[in-house]
Amino acid sequence: MTSRVGKASLRSKIMSAQEAATFIKDGDNVGMSGFTGAGYPKAVPVALAARIREEHAAGRPFSVGVWTGASTAPELDGALAETGGVRTRLPYQSDPVTRARINEGTIDYNDIHLSHLGPLVREGFLGNLDVAVIEVTAITDDGRLIPSSSIGNNKVWLDEADKIVLEVNSWQSMDLEGMHDVYEKFALPPYRQPLQMTRPGDRIGQPYLSVDNEKIVAIVETEQSDRNTPFKPLDETSKAIAGHFIEFLEHEVSRGRLPKELLPLQSGVGNIANAVLAGLLDSKFEGLTSYTEVIQDGMVELIDAGKLTVASATAFSLSPDAAEQMNNDAARYRRNIILRPQEISNHPELIRRLGVIACNGLIEADIYGNVNSTHIMGSRMQNGIGGSGDFARNAYISCFVTPSTAKGGAISAIVPFVSHVDHTEHDTSVIVTEQGLADLRGLAPRKRAKLIIEKCAHPTYRPMLEEYVERAGKVANGQHTPHDLMRAHEWHQRFIAEGTMMPGR
Amino acid sequence: MTSRVGKASLRSKIMSAQEAATFIKDGDNVGMSGFTGAGYPKAVPVALAARIREEHAAGRPFSVGVWTGASTAPELDGALAETGGVRTRLPYQSDPVTRARINEGTIDYNDIHLSHLGPLVREGFLGNLDVAVIEVTAITDDGRLIPSSSIGNNKVWLDEADKIVLEVNSWQSMDLEGMHDVYEKFALPPYRQPLQMTRPGDRIGQPYLSVDNEKIVAIVETEQSDRNTPFKPLDETSKAIAGHFIEFLEHEVSRGRLPKELLPLQSGVGNIANAVLAGLLDSKFEGLTSYTEVIQDGMVELIDAGKLTVASATAFSLSPDAAEQMNNDAARYRRNIILRPQEISNHPELIRRLGVIACNGLIEADIYGNVNSTHIMGSRMQNGIGGSGDFARNAYISCFVTPSTAKGGAISAIVPFVSHVDHTEHDTSVIVTEQGLADLRGLAPRKRAKLIIEKCAHPTYRPMLEEYVERAGKVANGQHTPHDLMRAHEWHQRFIAEGTMMPGR
Repeated sequence: MTSRVGKASLRSKIMSAQEAATFIKDGDNVGMSGFTGAGYPKAVPVALAARIREEHAAGRPFSVGVWTGASTAPELDGALAETGGVRTRLPYQSDPVTRARINEGTIDYNDIHLSHLGPLVREGFLGNLDVAVIEVTAITDDGRLIPSSSIGNNKVWLDEADKIVLEVNSWQSMDLEGMHDVYEKFALPPYRQPLQMTRPGDRIGQPYLSVDNEKIVAIVETEQSDRNTPFKPLDETSKAIAGHFIEFLEHEVSRGRLPKELLPLQSGVGNIANAVLAGLLDSKFEGLTSYTEVIQDGMVELIDAGKLTVASATAFSLSPDAAEQMNNDAARYRRNIILRPQEISNHPELIRRLGVIACNGLIEADIYGNVNSTHIMGSRMQNGIGGSGDFARNAYISCFVTPSTAKGGAISAIVPFVSHVDHTEHDTSVIVTEQGLADLRGLAPRKRAKLIIEKCAHPTYRPMLEEYVERAGKVANGQHTPHDLMRAHEWHQRFIAEGTMMPGR
Repeated sequence: MTSRVGKASLRSKIMSAQEAATFIKDGDNVGMSGFTGAGYPKAVPVALAARIREEHAAGRPFSVGVWTGASTAPELDGALAETGGVRTRLPYQSDPVTRARINEGTIDYNDIHLSHLGPLVREGFLGNLDVAVIEVTAITDDGRLIPSSSIGNNKVWLDEADKIVLEVNSWQSMDLEGMHDVYEKFALPPYRQPLQMTRPGDRIGQPYLSVDNEKIVAIVETEQSDRNTPFKPLDETSKAIAGHFIEFLEHEVSRGRLPKELLPLQSGVGNIANAVLAGLLDSKFEGLTSYTEVIQDGMVELIDAGKLTVASATAFSLSPDAAEQMNNDAARYRRNIILRPQEISNHPELIRRLGVIACNGLIEADIYGNVNSTHIMGSRMQNGIGGSGDFARNAYISCFVTPSTAKGGAISAIVPFVSHVDHTEHDTSVIVTEQGLADLRGLAPRKRAKLIIEKCAHPTYRPMLEEYVERAGKVANGQHTPHDLMRAHEWHQRFIAEGTMMPGR
């Protein structure tokens, strides 16, 4: 294998992951690459975990702050959280071990909008960034970096870290070269400039990550695939949700409120999102575009079918099969796919201007349209808000999708009062379940409640919701958003105590 | 008096308010000018109210949808709400009669971000706009309009309404001509273009409102002052809040995290905002700028003192004295003041780019940083979210200010769990009360709770909050954001039942 470290003078920095991990000290903040299980470092975090264990075994304290793009993989979040040596974690995670540590109260987790972390770090609000650990596809002859399967916050980490550790992963296709568009002119106010992008396919940067080569202290060569979780086969619930959503889009086009090619689509990660994409594949829509966080299997299929002309994102989130296909055909796919820094993929300015149609999952919504995307029964963190707030808040139409129940019916996704709010009533345009779709735009709260209960709630929970509304109307101190506050979270409390929101089970 | 209707052919449209009101029919949606009691029509709404009463007295139904920029005045919101003929109201109000109607459930109020209404109407989501009723300072010889003391949504209403009624108010100073900057290139996606503004003082439009003269059906001449509510003298609580906030700004400058001229300031309306502005007058800050919704007395004083170089807003909100001063000296003030459409003053793209420091009031905040700006005890609408969401969500630093108690101590502004969420934990950087300031940036929820209780809560409520935190830590199903859901709203419920949040009083 020819070395992918093109610049000769950097080859002296090639070393083992164990050696590279020694550059990370107790107390450091470490900026890692990685976004939805793509492009995260595969070797150094594991070596760092071993080092933390050794230090702990020797009775010495060792903890780090872990900053990433978004979620990573067991080799990063899992391995490090296992050691108990993660002090702080931000801005997003979806790892079972990390989640357990957060909910036992031993990791301080700061759950923030994905577009906000870069600026916060550049502004210096979060303290010094000591080390960056970044996976790349290759280093060019002149010392620039070809990004791998995600960009995330890599540009921020490279700019801001004192020391840089690179992982050069030869599993990543060399044909990714040219797919990325790295905006380089980030500035803090008052020096920020307009982002001169008017279409999802516009390029406003360059295909490489520039980096001060003097800061590179270690290079580790790897050859290991991304996490690439297989998606489950589409179930009937997901297909029904997708059906309602696509019917809504068709309706909006027929009313002249959306162009026939729609507007750029954003979708959260997961099975419902893939069902929507599968639904679009079977629909009559043509000339679609996407301005989103992650490229999923369904988007690749839409590109193959000639229905999706541009997919802009910051990362892949592919099944193993689709990842292999991408690796083989990256030269072709880079005509349609652009990967950008997450500050750009999730930028409020661009989401607003492009008129993105946002479609995100949720944990629960309430009868007035407030959405909880993060917490189980109010206290327990699931994953985090991720980019959903970046999109929902500034979208043209902000849609949330969910099955109407969870845990075999023990949980209703539609509740009287959500146990945590991540997206307010002001930012929710549409809610969709397999039962139907509620278009909340322009409606006062009581009208929203009627519609959400009728269209979205599961039939077994509808009478309980109607009863809540009726009672709230009687006891509330105002009829704008009537609540019975003492019973607003009764359902959640019942679930905690009895394992179901449904009484008498 | 020379007529301010410059274009000769339009003078035939001059008529009484009573005649003009007959252009409004039962069932119409009416777009009115007006923003924080400035620039609202003074005659036609009163005439319309009389007409509605007559129709109702004759047994005929008559109701309208009332759309504005933001709040107006008794002559508009009060007069119309009194009749019972307001069917829907959006996007904001602060009128006692309207509020009562909303809370008795007879007006459907849609409380939405001020920057969102324009696009929603242009997109056609909210139905047809039948009539616009717009106050202007004058009509030029070629039929363009010189705006008055607010712009708000006037450009949208002029563009979208079938029929236009103008009120030409000779109380407004002719020297306002040239102060306004009306962006005219609004487009729906996919045709939106970057807003080429990088400083709060940049002009990107023209000083007049263009309008299709064919749509003008009536012109009513008035001579009546704006609402111009006097501000109360600054109290010790407001001064203490302002002191903490300004100390924070100085601290940020000293840490190199803000430039010495700060960044453009946004502030909500009211006494605390004016106290902050008064505090800035006494501070060492120079070369300040403002990118905000409304020009208040304190800003005028800062301009007079040479400390504020640019104030960009969409409206005035002045005391009677300051309004008179503005009317006399508008030719001088227009060197420093720019009034813009609210789509621009509140635009996410510009707020984010300019790095606005947002400072908004609140009704209550909870221990984890969620903010309620709109509801009294969960159900009862006070005013509305207004522009606070536009600013908080995309600000460089998002601050919320409030006295730590209300109603003589019967209400704590810091509660275990807010009874309504308008700004989530993700969008709250800083909370300030007269007790102190909590900088929440980068903190996990439990650390935020500790800080908010210590710095912001009133001492009489601190032990109750600490007790809640302790109990929540024991009963919660997770330690990320520990809550005791059954008791989360106990304080609110106690207030509803007993008139105080404090037990045993």
